[in-house]
Amino acid sequence: MTAPIDPVVTLPAADQGLHADVTGAPGAAQRRAVAKTITLLESTRPDHRARADALLNALLPHSGRSFRLGISGVPGVGKSTFIEALGLFLIERGHRVAVLAVDPSSSISGGSILGDKTRMERLSMDTRAYIRPSPSSGTLGGVAEKTREAMLVCEAAGHDVVIVETVGVGQSETAVAGMTDMFVLLQLPNAGDDLQAIKKGVMELADLVVINKADLDEAAATRARAQISSSLRLIGMHGNPDHLHHDQQVWHPDVMQLSALKGSGLAEFWAAITRFRDLQTANGRLAARRQLQDQAWMWSLIDAGLKQRFKAHPAVTTALPQLTGDVHAGRMAASVAARRLLDLFH
Amino acid sequence: MTAPIDPVVTLPAADQGLHADVTGAPGAAQRRAVAKTITLLESTRPDHRARADALLNALLPHSGRSFRLGISGVPGVGKSTFIEALGLFLIERGHRVAVLAVDPSSSISGGSILGDKTRMERLSMDTRAYIRPSPSSGTLGGVAEKTREAMLVCEAAGHDVVIVETVGVGQSETAVAGMTDMFVLLQLPNAGDDLQAIKKGVMELADLVVINKADLDEAAATRARAQISSSLRLIGMHGNPDHLHHDQQVWHPDVMQLSALKGSGLAEFWAAITRFRDLQTANGRLAARRQLQDQAWMWSLIDAGLKQRFKAHPAVTTALPQLTGDVHAGRMAASVAARRLLDLFH
Repeated sequence: MTAPIDPVVTLPAADQGLHADVTGAPGAAQRRAVAKTITLLESTRPDHRARADALLNALLPHSGRSFRLGISGVPGVGKSTFIEALGLFLIERGHRVAVLAVDPSSSISGGSILGDKTRMERLSMDTRAYIRPSPSSGTLGGVAEKTREAMLVCEAAGHDVVIVETVGVGQSETAVAGMTDMFVLLQLPNAGDDLQAIKKGVMELADLVVINKADLDEAAATRARAQISSSLRLIGMHGNPDHLHHDQQVWHPDVMQLSALKGSGLAEFWAAITRFRDLQTANGRLAARRQLQDQAWMWSLIDAGLKQRFKAHPAVTTALPQLTGDVHAGRMAASVAARRLLDLFH
Repeated sequence: MTAPIDPVVTLPAADQGLHADVTGAPGAAQRRAVAKTITLLESTRPDHRARADALLNALLPHSGRSFRLGISGVPGVGKSTFIEALGLFLIERGHRVAVLAVDPSSSISGGSILGDKTRMERLSMDTRAYIRPSPSSGTLGGVAEKTREAMLVCEAAGHDVVIVETVGVGQSETAVAGMTDMFVLLQLPNAGDDLQAIKKGVMELADLVVINKADLDEAAATRARAQISSSLRLIGMHGNPDHLHHDQQVWHPDVMQLSALKGSGLAEFWAAITRFRDLQTANGRLAARRQLQDQAWMWSLIDAGLKQRFKAHPAVTTALPQLTGDVHAGRMAASVAARRLLDLFH
């Protein structure tokens, strides 16, 4: 009942052209096709959605052959400078780089962290790179879903390094760590100071912490490195017995220093990324992480869809305000209210 | 359509007696009634569940007047000794203490962390205390739900300190932090050593870290205290601007030393708890935390119920294995599979 879709048969003519251009030769036509496809994926129109799903399935066999790198850090840490320097470093070495963004605030502020392409002017002008601002569909779940799909399109177009950037707000780091092979957290040399508020849970997502602008204050950068290393050891033990033996086959989150503005440390950074990728490929964890991510992605969309239907159910819509009020006022136990609402949904 | 339940009218005669005994005078009859009520709440029989819901709503107005203290720590950290010493300390000072446990492994191992009451022999024999082992309903969600409900019963019986213990396995700490006013993490003096694996995310839940058995190695305990303090500062900033100003009205997670076996440090520990409770009561965060917990509890039960119904739906049951397999094999994007399954559920 759910046979794999044959793209040639089911795709409308226009979308067959898109599919051919996305998976075709690099160049201006491919860039336009990638942009057009992502725009189709971001559309909320039901007919667009059906076309997008067919196109996505058709592109899927061409996807997955990139390294997916998540990068986060608070505003001011120098993310754009870092990503542009890294992107230029990589394309000079033959890579094709895509930069995507997850910024759930973009729909509120009206501007994405990557909306202003002049922030990465040199990289965005290079045809070997593709830069896409954050989708602005409002909720983090929506933004993250579109970015995951955009990542697949970029991979089908042959980008072998996909960078997903996010700003340190809310749960967006968790979403980005949940769609990438490696999660890198940028820090300033004054880590540990009160000014550098790290959101709860973010440090634990990091496979690598980079102290950017290390040249500003070498002594502070060294202190920050020691402090973060110690914290990573303390919080980073996954309860996985592997971690107790410092197994050489297992990656241990690390801290390094860098100055993106001066361009120093980029080669060491990419060497660390490569070590991580090779290790995770050899020990099978990269593939396992992606499969877990796919399952989690599917179930999080199902959960969101179920909750949406639940809230839209007439009997639930009617009863929810009063039951929520009863729980709020201590007139009804939360578990009793939950069971009543589920009974109404039948 | 959801008028508050009048307990006297809707409770069957036997349950009116239970209600009267639970909310009545302390003593043997009350202890029996509390135990019987919790057993009824833990029953999975539908008729028991209906009675339990009515009884729970009837007890609800009598609940909530306790301080809810979550305590966690890996096996060997001395939780039982600590909780027994604390319980005896508190009942000597006029408190009535209840000790509940969340142990999702109890249904597998056949024994709960608190199943063997001889572990807290002195406390369990005292009628001013009530000790209940972990419910063994298999999943963490089920265990946690029953423990939340048992907590309400203990409160209705006048226990003014409810301690919820959990062992450092899986996500049980998150569940316990989500049902208590304060979450305390017990540590050994060798914190930071590889042997003392702290699960990801647990350190961040802590309102207070206690280094137990500090007398075993004073120097190590002092080092551990400094290291954990530093980590708490680094990871504990909630992105809440309050935290940036070391506001006296806001609690900052702290670390203290103690020796439960020797009984030293208990008075200081309780003084810290009292400071936390007073501060959180004065700044409104205790009430806000409980309301958020109630809402989260309701929605987590709804989510679990929706997912259960979804998985039990015939069309979903039929299609799920193949679609999951398609996602696993990279033949279908996870988002496309999610939308298909949701369509089948209609």
